[in-house]
Amino acid sequence: MTKADITAQIKCKRTFLCVGLDTVIEKIPVHLQKEKDAVFQFNKQIVDATAKYCVAYKPNTAFYESEGLEGWKNLEKTINYIKTNYPQHLVIADAKRGDIGNTSKRYAKAFFEKLNADAITVAPYMGFDSVEPFLGFDNKWVILLGLTSNSGSEDFQQLNLKTGHSLFETVVQKATTWAASDQLMFVTGATKPDMIRKIRAIAPDYFFLVPGVGAQGGDLDAVAKAGLNKEIGLLVNASRSILYASSGEDFATAAAEEALRLQKQMEMLLAKHQLI
Amino acid sequence: MTKADITAQIKCKRTFLCVGLDTVIEKIPVHLQKEKDAVFQFNKQIVDATAKYCVAYKPNTAFYESEGLEGWKNLEKTINYIKTNYPQHLVIADAKRGDIGNTSKRYAKAFFEKLNADAITVAPYMGFDSVEPFLGFDNKWVILLGLTSNSGSEDFQQLNLKTGHSLFETVVQKATTWAASDQLMFVTGATKPDMIRKIRAIAPDYFFLVPGVGAQGGDLDAVAKAGLNKEIGLLVNASRSILYASSGEDFATAAAEEALRLQKQMEMLLAKHQLI
Repeated sequence: MTKADITAQIKCKRTFLCVGLDTVIEKIPVHLQKEKDAVFQFNKQIVDATAKYCVAYKPNTAFYESEGLEGWKNLEKTINYIKTNYPQHLVIADAKRGDIGNTSKRYAKAFFEKLNADAITVAPYMGFDSVEPFLGFDNKWVILLGLTSNSGSEDFQQLNLKTGHSLFETVVQKATTWAASDQLMFVTGATKPDMIRKIRAIAPDYFFLVPGVGAQGGDLDAVAKAGLNKEIGLLVNASRSILYASSGEDFATAAAEEALRLQKQMEMLLAKHQLI
Repeated sequence: MTKADITAQIKCKRTFLCVGLDTVIEKIPVHLQKEKDAVFQFNKQIVDATAKYCVAYKPNTAFYESEGLEGWKNLEKTINYIKTNYPQHLVIADAKRGDIGNTSKRYAKAFFEKLNADAITVAPYMGFDSVEPFLGFDNKWVILLGLTSNSGSEDFQQLNLKTGHSLFETVVQKATTWAASDQLMFVTGATKPDMIRKIRAIAPDYFFLVPGVGAQGGDLDAVAKAGLNKEIGLLVNASRSILYASSGEDFATAAAEEALRLQKQMEMLLAKHQLI
């Protein structure tokens, strides 16, 4: 999927919502838990209910790996279901991988070829040769961690370097020399709009994947103000607030309502910033 | 496995070798490739051939994930085989995971409970709350990336902070306040002995996992000189040089010979440093 495709989808559907599929078996409604592939059955209904209101899905691999083989099967089935039924949605494997070159190459194979995801989140600590192998695929995306939404982002990301710039600014700046905005995006946590503004100044043309709206408390208006660019440039993720909007049999309807609520808010913001 | 257990094993077997199980299907001898679980069959023979000469095994998850479901099965079977037949060997899942708290908790479940690994490598970029969930398990280890062996370690890890210290020194120093040396180790690349010396000064009592000897060109003598402490404090990993010592039917014998060669070298170093 190209950058123009993503922007076109956002404008057409008037939403830059990404739905995070961080599905936890214990939180699935009881009536579904008996199914052998309960997590997939749940995801399928969530996807069908929310597809109209979002442009991307983001399964986080931790929630599948923690269920062992069964979990990996559910991840495969979920991605396959989305790619087959909703081919215009971007599928982001939120995997936060990164290793030496010959190893990152294997991760790229795992996520881009075996699982057929469109994008993968990558951790920057190991530098260029740990990121490069993910960049060799047509129409596939690397989403590099810039500034994350958690409190631990203060431990290293926000430290100042000798140059006067913070580590996260340096990561983003250096990475813009590794790949253009048609292959690379950045994770920029919703809980820190002031810093999103700084990252936007460094990377004006790049898309940002913004987690932390919803359960983590990020403010969508502030994120939009700080992060929107002329091609939209934002994918804002919500996971728990949508997946677990209801714990009853009406979970899919409740998820759709929450996704619709966010879509409406995003439509308003796109209009306000004269992007639609 | 406790720190005292690891030191005792090293002294008893006169080796601080860790064998990296980065098994690539295409590199497995042809006669094994027909087997359905070829990677596991290969690993099993490698483990049986090298167990005497090492104290730890380190499967890197990328090499299993890249083969999809079959790969994940081979990873499960490999760890299970080692834990059942060689319970005194440390099993390190080289996974380089790390995410926000509720997600890292799932990775901890995946690797410590589902896969039953003894240790997991963790990336530090997301800070304390991304590491903490891995620390809540008895006799399980977190091995945090300090300084990696690849060229990309120059991109961020070796940058100087405003404080005058480099990022990798700061990561190690801060992490020593998160957990003691009976729960936490550090990855310190073999290709940079001078920097291993710096890390040893910051973390005198911690074990270091040292990749990069062998195919990556690190010098074992220099690593030992820079990194050994009174409890040994080193696990040195070799992967490709052992796994692919021969591409023929004699691969297990050749792997044993290479592991024995490293064990002999380590025995000499332990004696030289008066540790045995």
